Parts: sequence; structure tokens; C-alpha cells
Amino acid sequence: MKVLWLTAHPEPQSLNASLHREGIRALEEQGHEVRVSDLYAMNFAPAVTAADFAHPAEERLIVGDAAKEAVRRGTLAPDIAVEQGKLSWADTMIVQFPLWWYGMPAILKGWFDRVFVAGFAFGIHDAQGRQLRYGEGALAGKRAMVIVSTGAREASLGPRGINGTLDELLFPLQHGTLWYVGMEVVPPLLIASADRADAATFAQHADVLRNRLEDLWHTQPLPFRHQNKGDYDDDLVLRPEVSPQTTGLTAHYRTAH
Amino acid sequence: MKVLWLTAHPEPQSLNASLHREGIRALEEQGHEVRVSDLYAMNFAPAVTAADFAHPAEERLIVGDAAKEAVRRGTLAPDIAVEQGKLSWADTMIVQFPLWWYGMPAILKGWFDRVFVAGFAFGIHDAQGRQLRYGEGALAGKRAMVIVSTGAREASLGPRGINGTLDELLFPLQHGTLWYVGMEVVPPLLIASADRADAATFAQHADVLRNRLEDLWHTQPLPFRHQNKGDYDDDLVLRPEVSPQTTGLTAHYRTAH
Repeated sequence: MKVLWLTAHPEPQSLNASLHREGIRALEEQGHEVRVSDLYAMNFAPAVTAADFAHPAEERLIVGDAAKEAVRRGTLAPDIAVEQGKLSWADTMIVQFPLWWYGMPAILKGWFDRVFVAGFAFGIHDAQGRQLRYGEGALAGKRAMVIVSTGAREASLGPRGINGTLDELLFPLQHGTLWYVGMEVVPPLLIASADRADAATFAQHADVLRNRLEDLWHTQPLPFRHQNKGDYDDDLVLRPEVSPQTTGLTAHYRTAH
Repeated sequence: MKVLWLTAHPEPQSLNASLHREGIRALEEQGHEVRVSDLYAMNFAPAVTAADFAHPAEERLIVGDAAKEAVRRGTLAPDIAVEQGKLSWADTMIVQFPLWWYGMPAILKGWFDRVFVAGFAFGIHDAQGRQLRYGEGALAGKRAMVIVSTGAREASLGPRGINGTLDELLFPLQHGTLWYVGMEVVPPLLIASADRADAATFAQHADVLRNRLEDLWHTQPLPFRHQNKGDYDDDLVLRPEVSPQTTGLTAHYRTAH
């Protein structure tokens, strides 16, 4: 595999950083190539601005349009172009982060806001004029896996846990972002109770991580439904005969998981 | 009301910015006081760093611990302290943003990461040692409302729409963040198909917005369950007799909504 490993933790001595180093070592031992975007170490700028698109300051900025135009002209900001180059090179992406306020740290959210722009990551249409997204699109053929650490205990992220399940919390990322641009997404790896990890727990986490990485290319991805294979109508609503009576996030999986 | 209005759009000529100005005018006409955090105009820094806490560079940064210590000593970074001051002043918070990758723009996510820190927004315990959160806590007694614009059409954000429903996408913010720190959250205001809004549509949106603001203090909040009022066990899992057989995000509402 050619792996792009995104990580976003401010502390090089953290559990996240240790697992990151372990994971890279494991991948290289397994014969894979790895490139890293350590967003804190890079001091990555998270906020979308007109400067991303070399957009004239006096003209109204419409983000999607400005992005497409900049992609067409090759005038995206250099730090964005570098990240897109890594992504084009990779066949696999790891997205690793501590869960902050039940989502990604801002620096990582900003990576997606700035790098996954219209004209690069989405915005391609087929002969029928349908946009290729949700299972098809510019980044189809690649795989992704999310690795997330939480202070919360695992039970509180279970089917009846107060925080909601991890798959529900990650729906905007796993389905709305990674699957949206065409990537297959394997189940996430949760490192719960991360604040209380001792050396023995760390060794266990590292073992699980090595196994998950070794199996990554053969792991069954999350069974999200394709936009353009008959399940959705033209308003992108599930057709009545598809999982009738089911509403909510689970309706967008082909099978229970 | 004393309203803190958070907004996060890079373009002052956008639909978001126009509605923002309309909303403030309406609130002031209704006799309320308003303070604004226009994060792009402020060039707000989104990434949590050791400098937020005046934390010694050579010591391992554990974010929660460093935050509590900085709150105790009064050494939080000045830009964070200013935002916390506005929040302490306010009884109501509006959180307005364009939905980017099914979540907040990074600059706004970073506001919560940096301002809602341990020791200020949460981390208070009762006499039984239970943490006061999910309906109780440091910011209890305040109200919040989310205003979100989307390029997507409304149907695709409905109960069987491909994007998931707005309440599901906003669960990490409305439940996991605002309710977590004790705020009551009224239903969100969705401005769908925002890319296609003409003058007539804008006038309709502005009308709805004025009405929602006028009713805000008397609107029924989302019926999220309290952590400490009997519905959850000590692992923060719903007790078996509470909505038995229900799993997923809807289980954390007291009544269907």
C-alpha cells in the first residue's frame, strides 16, 4: 500500500503520537510506503480563506466556485497543492485524532475544508449529469481508516451510551466526507479511556493497531449505499421500497453492521 | 436577552453575513443586547496549543489538565479569556455557520476546542462526585440556537435523505457540546439550498429568522435526557427500562421530536 497518514495531536509525547510511530513502523516492516501529514508539526493553517484560491479581494467569494476555478487554473495555495499531491499518490489514508467535542480537532477539520475542495475531491458528473459522489468520484479506488482516541470509556460510546456510538459520531466524516468523495471506509479503531492508558494497555493497543494495519486492504468496508445505484431518488431520498420504515443514519448502510 | 452571536463565514457579502446583520437588527429592535464573535473578521486562531495554557514547552501537555491549571491560575491566553468573558455575560448563544463537510468550519470548531475548556465549561462535580454535565454544569441556565446554511436541498437532510438529518449531523454540537456544558438547545434553523437564494427567498429566510429570534426564550428546547436524573447507569449507558430496545441517537431524547 501507499499510505498517507494524517495525524493531529499537539503533544509528541502523547498516546496518539506513540501509536502513530508504532503504526508507521508496522507499515514499513510490512513493506508499505508511508507519507505523513502531522498537522501540528506542520503548523497547518485550518481556515479556508480567499487566499487559498488566489481570489481577488474585491470580488465576492463563493467558496465552491472559487475552488473549481483555482483547480482549473492551478492557482490553489501551495500548502493545499502539497497535500493534494500526497493524496493523489496514496491508495490508502489513515485519519488519526483525539476526539475533541465529539469531532475532529479544528486543525484536522480544516485539512478537509481546505484540501477536499470542489474540482479536486468532488464535482465530477457522469453522462446523465449526475454528480459522482457517495461511493464514486475523484478519489474512488482508495481506502480510508479512522483511528480515534477518547477520554470517555468504551461503554459510553456503545449502542445505548450517552455519547452516541462512534459510527454515529463519525458519520459526517466516514460517510459525509470519505465515502462522499468515493473512498471505501473500513471500520474505525477506537482507543477508549486514553487518559488512563498504562504501559500494558499501550502494548495491547499497539498490537491491535498492527493487526488492523496488516488486514487493512482485505477488511470489509462499511456497507454504505451508493448514491447512483438505484437506492436514492433524484432528491437523494431513499426510495420507498428500500429499507421501508427505516429512518436515520442506519438507513444508509446496505446491511446492519 | 443578552445574546452572544457566533458566526463563521469568510465572505461579508454572503447569505450568512446578510442574515447575521438582519438577526442583529431584529434582536436590537426587540430590545435585546447583542455581542458578536465574527470569527473570520477577528482572524480567530483555531488550533489548541500549549501557548493557550502558558504551559512549559519542555513538559508533556495533557490538554485537560493544562486547561484546568490555567483556569485556576488565570493564565489562559487573552483571546480565549475574552471569549469566555462574552459567554459569561450572555444568557443566550447563537451559533451560525455554513455546513462544511457536514460539520462546522474549522475556525468555529476551534472556538469550541479552545474556549470550552476543562475548568471553565465543564469539570465541576456534585457532592456525590458525579460530574455535572449533559443538562447541568458551568453554563446551565443559558440557551443556544444553531443556524446553519447548506448547499444541499432540504429533502436530502430529511429522515431518509442521503446526508442524514440535520439533528443527527448536529448531535456532536447540540448534544455533545452545548447540552454537555448545561445549555438548553432550541431546534436549529436550517437555510437549505443557500447557493440558489434570490431576493424573494432571502426575504422569506429573514422573516423566519426574526420570528425564531422573537420566540427564542419561549421555544421548547430539544428534549435531551439529563445525565444525572436517573436515566443512565454509572457507565453512562441508558438503564434497561428506559426506552427499551431503542438504540442510536434518538434514545437520548426524552420524547420523539
